[in-house]
Order: sequence, then structure tokens, then C-alpha cells
Amino acid sequence: MRKIYAIGIGAGDPEHLTVQAIDRLNRVDVFFVLDKGAEKADLVRVRQEILDRFVTRPHRIVLVADPPRDRTPEDYRAAVADWHAARAAVYEQFLRSELDESSTGAFLVWGDPSLYDSTIALIEAVLARGNVEFEYEVIPGISSISALVARHRTTMNQIGRSVQLTTGRRLATGWPPDVDDVFVLLDAHTTFDRFTDSGLTIYWGAYVGTPDEILISGPLTPALATRIRETRAAARERHGWIMDTYLLRRPA
Amino acid sequence: MRKIYAIGIGAGDPEHLTVQAIDRLNRVDVFFVLDKGAEKADLVRVRQEILDRFVTRPHRIVLVADPPRDRTPEDYRAAVADWHAARAAVYEQFLRSELDESSTGAFLVWGDPSLYDSTIALIEAVLARGNVEFEYEVIPGISSISALVARHRTTMNQIGRSVQLTTGRRLATGWPPDVDDVFVLLDAHTTFDRFTDSGLTIYWGAYVGTPDEILISGPLTPALATRIRETRAAARERHGWIMDTYLLRRPA
Repeated sequence: MRKIYAIGIGAGDPEHLTVQAIDRLNRVDVFFVLDKGAEKADLVRVRQEILDRFVTRPHRIVLVADPPRDRTPEDYRAAVADWHAARAAVYEQFLRSELDESSTGAFLVWGDPSLYDSTIALIEAVLARGNVEFEYEVIPGISSISALVARHRTTMNQIGRSVQLTTGRRLATGWPPDVDDVFVLLDAHTTFDRFTDSGLTIYWGAYVGTPDEILISGPLTPALATRIRETRAAARERHGWIMDTYLLRRPA
Repeated sequence: MRKIYAIGIGAGDPEHLTVQAIDRLNRVDVFFVLDKGAEKADLVRVRQEILDRFVTRPHRIVLVADPPRDRTPEDYRAAVADWHAARAAVYEQFLRSELDESSTGAFLVWGDPSLYDSTIALIEAVLARGNVEFEYEVIPGISSISALVARHRTTMNQIGRSVQLTTGRRLATGWPPDVDDVFVLLDAHTTFDRFTDSGLTIYWGAYVGTPDEILISGPLTPALATRIRETRAAARERHGWIMDTYLLRRPA
């Protein structure tokens, strides 16, 4: 039967690859790569470097154009669900046309496939359509948040306390109740700006694990928030894209 | 100067080791291994297998007896802080006696050093005592929760929603406000029992990534809670120890 892997490739450093991930990479006939346009060309290049460095068997790479997505929807969850449905149709077609029944395909996923990534939902959606049969396996990877705190040499949690993982969109509605450590992902709007002078410490990182890594941390004063916002804007301008995340900590 | 690594070795499967972790393992002169007594002999053995498989240079292994810890304290955080202070004194002594100024030591940490693990705090506490100088680096690892959801082929978060990481002790005080997905670590008391018939789904796993892996998932009915509780007790009896974690999901 067809086999599909969703392989976590870590947060930007090719050395985040696990032994398990390298083993699975070397069972793959066809790698499906989302073509997200020129702004992500750096990411496509790093993925190519990973394949060049770690894969020793013949393989093909198929670029798949991602369907367009409404980035300013009225209903965020409905818009994402519509987009997933469109992607499922695209991928079903690719799986049927590119893989015969004894072939193996893979999606390479930045960070960990389980964390704010749509690959697993996409694979489940293709299965649910019922038009193509396959087995699949998820290979965990070093997440962007593990990489961030490792580089800052701090922990995710304080002793015996809870941790929240959330989005910029949700943090904008207020500090989550009853937690002291909040990781913010998918934040295009530097939402930390709303929490200056609240006794928080920020641990921010961009391009973590890559040669372009930028790390900034300290008490979240208005001055530090401005420094991060300006650093972020300049880096985004320079690279054409940015991948950043941060931890906001309220000392318990 | 002395160098120390805190190396995440993944959640139980030696193939969780990253390329970066293997690189650092091969720079180490002395591995410090906490001797937690007979009940964790299996874990010491897996660590030895990792060293045998991946380390090609000469090295020593130093077993360090963990200071005793109050497991039923009145004040949980104070007891853990006391225990950390006692460990810091023990480790300072070991770092000074086992490593000369050009040597490299390492702690091998299950899962990810950033998540409910005391190694980073311990290293910082030794540094803060000011009696021994060293550089240190944290190498991220596959966390127990990444491994759990990968094996269940599900995600940590639902689309655009928040995720909470917490302890059994904290979950016992009630469902956290405003989140739909809760990972529970360090839970010796099957706290999920309190949330049956609440419309939750549970994804439970023990010894994840090892040959002894047990996975159970489904709607959290009283019958399923009983099945997990009995499975857990039997496995713990059989092995003499258990390492388990779970995700409770409220469909958004």
C-alpha cells in the first residue's frame, strides 16, 4: 500500500534532524514540497540542503502550489477549514498521480508536525475523502519553541507551573488566566507590545538555529519592545520573510 | 574553560537523538548520570545503549546519587527549591572533582531539557554559587508530548486554539480556563478520572517510543478511564516504574 510520512525536520538547523527522521527520509520515493512563492525561497533551499546532506537513495521532489488563502477573514477558523479542504483536493490529486501503490511519499515539516502546522489535518482530510488509500506515520521534530528556549538556555515552565502555547491573535484578547509562561506563535503583529511594564520577561528569537539567528531577551520594557519590533521589521525587510516566536514569562 | 552540555535525548526511542546531540555526545569526556535507584534501572540501561551506539570517543560515566526529596511536602515549590539547592551542592562537587579546566561534561536528559526537567535550573544554581566556572549549552530534544501526539497521529493544538501544558497536581484544581487541549505531565494520580463524561477525548501513552509502548485513546468515558487506570497500574507493577503522559482534548 502507498505510505506517507509527515517528517518533522526541526526549527531551521539541519542538525535538528533525528536519526529516525533520517531513516524515514531514506525510504521515500517522492517528496512533496509546498511552493509558497518567492518569499519562502530560503526555506525551500534549506530543505534541499537537508535532502542533499542526508538522503542517499534516488528520489523525486514534486513542488505543489498551495491554494490561495484568505488572510483577513471574518471567521478565522472557517477560512482555515476552507483552505484545508482546497489543499486536500490538491494533495489527493498529487498522491494519486505521483505515487503508485508500492511507493512512499513524504511531507517535510518545519519544527514539529504537531504544533501549529496543518500537514496532519491535511493528510486526515485526504483520507476522509475516501478516494485514495494509504498508511501514514508521523515523525516528531524539534519544535520552534524547544529550539527557542534551548538557545536562551531557559526552561518552558517554572517549577510546578503551567505553560500556555497560543497565537498572536488569541494573545491580543488578553493575558491567559492562571498561567505564568506563554509561548506565542504565528504573531505577525508584535502583540507583546500590549504587555510592556507588566513585570514580564520576554525571550524572543528569529531564524532560530540558522546562521541568521537573532536572540533578544530581558524585562519587557517599552524600550525593549521597541528594540524587538524594529529588529524584527529590519530583518523581515532584509530577508523578505521572517520566522520568529517568543516566550513571555511572569516570574512566579 | 570547562564546558557542560545539557543534551535532550528524546522520549525513550534512541532514534530520537538528533544529529546535533550526537555531535555533542562525541565532544564529552565525562557523562554525569543521576542514580535514582533500582526502579529506574531500565532508564539507565537505555542511556547506556545510547552511549554505546552513538559515541565513538573515550569517555567516563560518573554515577551521582540524587539527594533525597520530600515527595509529600506541605509547600511543593519550597520543597523542590530545597531539593535543587542540595543537588546544586552535590553537582558542584562533582564538576570540580571530575572535570579539569579543559574538560567537557554532559547531562543526558530524557525528552527535552526545557520541559518539566530540573537540569537547566541545576546548572544555573551551580553557576550562581560562584565556586566553579564553566560554559554551557542546551541541546533540545524530542519531548515526551511531541512523541505522544506523533504516535497518536494527532496535533497538539486545534486550529487557531491554545494549548496548556500542566501537571497532575494543577489539573486536580480544575480544568484550566479558556483552553481546549491540555497536556498533563508528572501525574501519579490519574487525575483524568475527574473529567469523565465531560465531552473530552483522551490520548494516553506510556513508555512512548520504546518496545514497551502502550497507547490508548478515545472519548473519556468512565469505562475508558478505568481501562487506562488498570493498564497503568499493571504496567507499573510489571516494570517497577512508569513514564506516562496524556492529552485531554475538548473538541472546539
